[in-house]
Amino acid sequence: MKHQIVVIATGNKHKLEEIQEILKTFPIEIKSMKDVGLEGLEIIEDGVTFEDNAKIKARIIMEKTGYVTIADDSGLEVDYLNNEPGVYSARFAGENATDQENNEKLLKLLKDIPMESRKARFVCAMAAIFPNGEEIVLRGECPGVIDTVPRGTGGFGYDPLFIVPEYQLTFAELGAERKNEISHRARALEKMKILLEDKLGSE
Amino acid sequence: MKHQIVVIATGNKHKLEEIQEILKTFPIEIKSMKDVGLEGLEIIEDGVTFEDNAKIKARIIMEKTGYVTIADDSGLEVDYLNNEPGVYSARFAGENATDQENNEKLLKLLKDIPMESRKARFVCAMAAIFPNGEEIVLRGECPGVIDTVPRGTGGFGYDPLFIVPEYQLTFAELGAERKNEISHRARALEKMKILLEDKLGSE
Repeated sequence: MKHQIVVIATGNKHKLEEIQEILKTFPIEIKSMKDVGLEGLEIIEDGVTFEDNAKIKARIIMEKTGYVTIADDSGLEVDYLNNEPGVYSARFAGENATDQENNEKLLKLLKDIPMESRKARFVCAMAAIFPNGEEIVLRGECPGVIDTVPRGTGGFGYDPLFIVPEYQLTFAELGAERKNEISHRARALEKMKILLEDKLGSE
Repeated sequence: MKHQIVVIATGNKHKLEEIQEILKTFPIEIKSMKDVGLEGLEIIEDGVTFEDNAKIKARIIMEKTGYVTIADDSGLEVDYLNNEPGVYSARFAGENATDQENNEKLLKLLKDIPMESRKARFVCAMAAIFPNGEEIVLRGECPGVIDTVPRGTGGFGYDPLFIVPEYQLTFAELGAERKNEISHRARALEKMKILLEDKLGSE
């Protein structure tokens, strides 16, 4: 299976680059949504789990293109909020909420909650769907604590509130390189790489 | 998560032992279907892929028990038969077909087909379903060739017809120990072990 084509089902340029970087050792040709003429395609992510949403995205694009497709779905789970916002992370404060609105809602819900009760984790479910029906589904997680004020200017989403205990810095303070080493998405991709080895690694 | 309970959703004692052996380094308590009072439970495996069937089994048992559940679904894909018998491997020659009947049907369908066109693979899809909705799905494969006559007395199913090119012996000739090192199930379990490391490995 030399130079198999793999589509990365994301409209996010940053995610695409991150995934490309990690898969660059495989003898595969990576295509973006734009490359396969599906840029801007609206996919309704109505799954109740991250895994469901990743599979929905990957399956639709695999069916439209006939190529192996990899998709992910990510979000924040906060222990005190019974794992909310979860799959609603991007629209926590409403359908077209900004990062700032989502962050403000989260801070409000955790107002006066002490640090030891602000445990959270970033979750990334990742799915690879193959034309023969084979699927790989897995998850990467990054544990952390929700800060009481936003810190840092990097990243996006809840990054300014998400403290990585090991560094005592938020994702927004850590810098892209360090974040990409330890993030939920990096951890999911590392595992995906191991599982793709057999499938895509042989020339 | 010390001594988390994990159910292995199989009625097959041999599979249970194989999985137990590979997961023995984890600080988990493995339960069989019998242990959770579900021995003999009939699950309708009506998925169109191995992955679907593995997930169906694991999800039903997880929902009934509340414990993390691992299930697998395995079968034989023959290139010349467009990947049949596939999910119908156990009932290829009919609903309650014996191994011998299935083997005979396969040999008949491949009658006069030369060795170079008898390529096949054993496939094992494995699913772990967690109470929080998380799922891990992956596949192990073992490539081989379908022999023209059955050879060997070990194993079960299509093992006497399945030649592993590396050894020029069928699965039924190889012996359980060697088979368990290179089989589709062993390969799936190896990957599953890597993915479970984060989830079950920490005390």
